[in-house]
Amino acid sequence: MANSDIDTVTVRRSLPNVMDEFDLIDRFFRKGVGPRDDVLLGIGDDAAVVSMPEGQRLVIASDSLIAGTHFPDQTPAHALGYRCLAVNLSDLAAMAAQPLWATLALSMPAVDADWLRAFAEGFFKSAADAEVALVGGDTVRGPLSMTVTVHGCVELGRHVARTGAAVGDRIYVTGTVGDARAGLDVLLHKQSKSGPNDKLLQRFLYPSPRVTPGRQLAGIASAMIDVSDGLHDDLGKLLHASGLGADLDLTAIPVSEELQCFAGADVALELALTGGDDYELCFTISPDNESQLAQLAEHWDCAATCIGEVSSEIEARWWRDGHRHAVGNPAFSHF
Amino acid sequence: MANSDIDTVTVRRSLPNVMDEFDLIDRFFRKGVGPRDDVLLGIGDDAAVVSMPEGQRLVIASDSLIAGTHFPDQTPAHALGYRCLAVNLSDLAAMAAQPLWATLALSMPAVDADWLRAFAEGFFKSAADAEVALVGGDTVRGPLSMTVTVHGCVELGRHVARTGAAVGDRIYVTGTVGDARAGLDVLLHKQSKSGPNDKLLQRFLYPSPRVTPGRQLAGIASAMIDVSDGLHDDLGKLLHASGLGADLDLTAIPVSEELQCFAGADVALELALTGGDDYELCFTISPDNESQLAQLAEHWDCAATCIGEVSSEIEARWWRDGHRHAVGNPAFSHF
Repeated sequence: MANSDIDTVTVRRSLPNVMDEFDLIDRFFRKGVGPRDDVLLGIGDDAAVVSMPEGQRLVIASDSLIAGTHFPDQTPAHALGYRCLAVNLSDLAAMAAQPLWATLALSMPAVDADWLRAFAEGFFKSAADAEVALVGGDTVRGPLSMTVTVHGCVELGRHVARTGAAVGDRIYVTGTVGDARAGLDVLLHKQSKSGPNDKLLQRFLYPSPRVTPGRQLAGIASAMIDVSDGLHDDLGKLLHASGLGADLDLTAIPVSEELQCFAGADVALELALTGGDDYELCFTISPDNESQLAQLAEHWDCAATCIGEVSSEIEARWWRDGHRHAVGNPAFSHF
Repeated sequence: MANSDIDTVTVRRSLPNVMDEFDLIDRFFRKGVGPRDDVLLGIGDDAAVVSMPEGQRLVIASDSLIAGTHFPDQTPAHALGYRCLAVNLSDLAAMAAQPLWATLALSMPAVDADWLRAFAEGFFKSAADAEVALVGGDTVRGPLSMTVTVHGCVELGRHVARTGAAVGDRIYVTGTVGDARAGLDVLLHKQSKSGPNDKLLQRFLYPSPRVTPGRQLAGIASAMIDVSDGLHDDLGKLLHASGLGADLDLTAIPVSEELQCFAGADVALELALTGGDDYELCFTISPDNESQLAQLAEHWDCAATCIGEVSSEIEARWWRDGHRHAVGNPAFSHF
């Protein structure tokens, strides 16, 4: 025991020396907790206690953002706070769930009040947009990263999994895809951030989880996924989970004018196919439900575009002007 | 666009180059998911869907373990897997909740099959002990860390918060305290790991969340917290939350023979006061409920020891042989 120098090692159970700083953190995060009647006990105890709405099933999703892996160093704190919740809300949307509560585990190398204030403001902006309450979490010292777990609800049997696609179902995607990937390029390469480029940048920094469309597709869509890794990849996961394939029209993919202006029509399409981080919804729907979809989508703040049809071929085939299009063109992979 | 070299930066949305490795991870974690009737949709979709037991409230807790902050590099993978769930189950126990489901966000610098297999085995050992199902999560590349979010249930009005202590309530702690802090020292300083030292080491590596005692204290204890940062610190948080203080008998603190053998009687008591990571429960209880407690505790695999009484003084005063004992003795802080 006499030789112990345990205080000099970096192992620390708690953070006694920075308690004041972490009190500061508490203030930032307690302040903005959105009030919800269903939170019986919120932040500040060993756990939160909440009331599930009657007759609903609980939906749980958890995603991490790691510095250097999921976002570059130059990402503003406000955007990070917004984004770490938004990408999780997108997972709930893809299940047709209504968001309710979130927990936040934040690891950071040092406490910077300005950074934290901006991060918390971004987080609570996203929380307010979706009427989500922050009910707990953990703040620790370590490499910059954040893990958010979100909780939502859906009526029994109305959640939309990846597995329910059927041959002949039509395949839709919300909004436009490829923008966020271009926006990341704008952020990284300090290209002009004004005009159309700013819209692309905002798509990367502040993804809009499609909460209302997702929720309204409960019991209507047959299968659904959110586009986080790229349309081709994510649709591939949905089709794989359903044990089916698809025929898809490359030229039908919804591409924004800003992206076409940024990258040119051909590269824009490739970005739309393979670029991630858009957090749009990709879903399949029986032709019988398409008129209902059209009515619902009139009230959404994004379009819903049909890009193809589910087939039994167990392969996603993209077509352009009658020719098969190979995804992952090597000439493009150096972009 | 021509100048873009985005592939060379470290920002990566997904992990396309290591997909095979992450498929391997999926296998480790899917394999061992404990079956629960209430999991309608588990790992593999955008989110999990589960059924809450009728008439229960949902309890949510989330804690992170960061390499170098919460555990030293030499911590075995199996223990890390076990520990990251166990410390979260301890938070549920401290609310008197029944554990149900967990999500795991695992960040690691590289994929090592042996390490992962051991980690998953440890995680599922803890999950099996508490009948918890892993329902989702995220595996990403980054510095070694893990964030677990656990979900449990408790009857309306029966959860035990930190705020409910009353003047005259008796203060109890389960098991023995201080062992884990000594066990960390055994791990770090490569002291003999046999005999009594091994028991201390195991207390650090494999904490036993007091799930059954916590559950049975629903509606019986008036306030409760788990001992993660040290008995004095954590009891202080409980008393602060309740707006009260306490008179406490230093010599009543339950200290194991192994700890006394390791550190000597005096240092053992200091470790018991200030050492963290024991994950025992500290709770207050009305004298009216003490006989019921005694009956319940007969069936626990740990003792419940009375160490003092809640007072109105808004200060935790430790007494030894009629003298006030100052916690955080500077002569000891260099241990």
